Amino acid sequence: MSIAVILQAAVDALSRDPDAGVSEIAKVAGVGRVTVYGHFPTRADLVAAALAHAIGQAHPGLEDVDLTGDPRAALTRLIESSWQVVDRSRSLLIAAQDVLPPSRILDLHAGPAGRVGKLVERGRDEGVFRTDLPAEWLVGVMHSVMHHAADELNAGRLAAGQAATYIAATVLAAFRPPAG
Amino acid sequence: MSIAVILQAAVDALSRDPDAGVSEIAKVAGVGRVTVYGHFPTRADLVAAALAHAIGQAHPGLEDVDLTGDPRAALTRLIESSWQVVDRSRSLLIAAQDVLPPSRILDLHAGPAGRVGKLVERGRDEGVFRTDLPAEWLVGVMHSVMHHAADELNAGRLAAGQAATYIAATVLAAFRPPAG
Repeated sequence: MSIAVILQAAVDALSRDPDAGVSEIAKVAGVGRVTVYGHFPTRADLVAAALAHAIGQAHPGLEDVDLTGDPRAALTRLIESSWQVVDRSRSLLIAAQDVLPPSRILDLHAGPAGRVGKLVERGRDEGVFRTDLPAEWLVGVMHSVMHHAADELNAGRLAAGQAATYIAATVLAAFRPPAG
Repeated sequence: MSIAVILQAAVDALSRDPDAGVSEIAKVAGVGRVTVYGHFPTRADLVAAALAHAIGQAHPGLEDVDLTGDPRAALTRLIESSWQVVDRSRSLLIAAQDVLPPSRILDLHAGPAGRVGKLVERGRDEGVFRTDLPAEWLVGVMHSVMHHAADELNAGRLAAGQAATYIAATVLAAFRPPAG
């Protein structure tokens, strides 16, 4: 039971302040620091688990996105919904970027990335997405562009209302077959 | 004089080991730790300065890239040369990602990004690059895709010989006008 409470406390505290420490997270969870360290030996372990927890919580919402029909329209819908999640989690994402290597952050997104991957494969089968680059690369490009938008928003160089449009316009163009 | 020596030592040490500490860098520079801390109050300051130094060193080579003619061919040449620099600096880039926020790393690339920006503007004027997204966003997308390739190479998911081709194919498609 205490692990779920600690993870929710970590998500809440890091969503308010990306520099929230283990003591503060323990306080929010109503447990001692020793209890937290018993489950998560380092702050990086706790941040990684909090990110995984937040991604898991977003899963049902993203599962509801209709991915049938034109793969391009489906990808646009998925980008819009995924962006809402990334935007809400920007502070947590900063915390993760501070302590985890980019490839570890990408790995923690394996769940949502798997859904994007299936849609990419269908779009390739239907001839609307390119096949001259690996599907895994295309999924990674979408992830990078989305997190780039989060970084630009954090830096005050992008308005929240523009992000999903920019991401979709960029990713759909990047996915188009070269001759298309 | 000692600042230049310390910066070169930091580039060398971090290029061998992204976790190289201030003591090791001081040793390579042949100075004491106190001297290093006199110029760079924290390891993050030193890593940022080392990245800026490495980017500055790469500048003359990138300046030599011919950016005249078809903007798409010019961008491909610039991506190929820039990738050589990024690939050589992957270990230093990991060190920077560990201690600096993504927007700070992007800011440190203002020099090379300025050159990409000029080429993007010319390509937009000539109608071969899109104008429905800001030039600054397009430059940032190229930066993200290039660093994504470095992360994938570090994670063993991409072969060194494929990277420049994947980056150019992705970025050129992302820059194409929507109707093109």
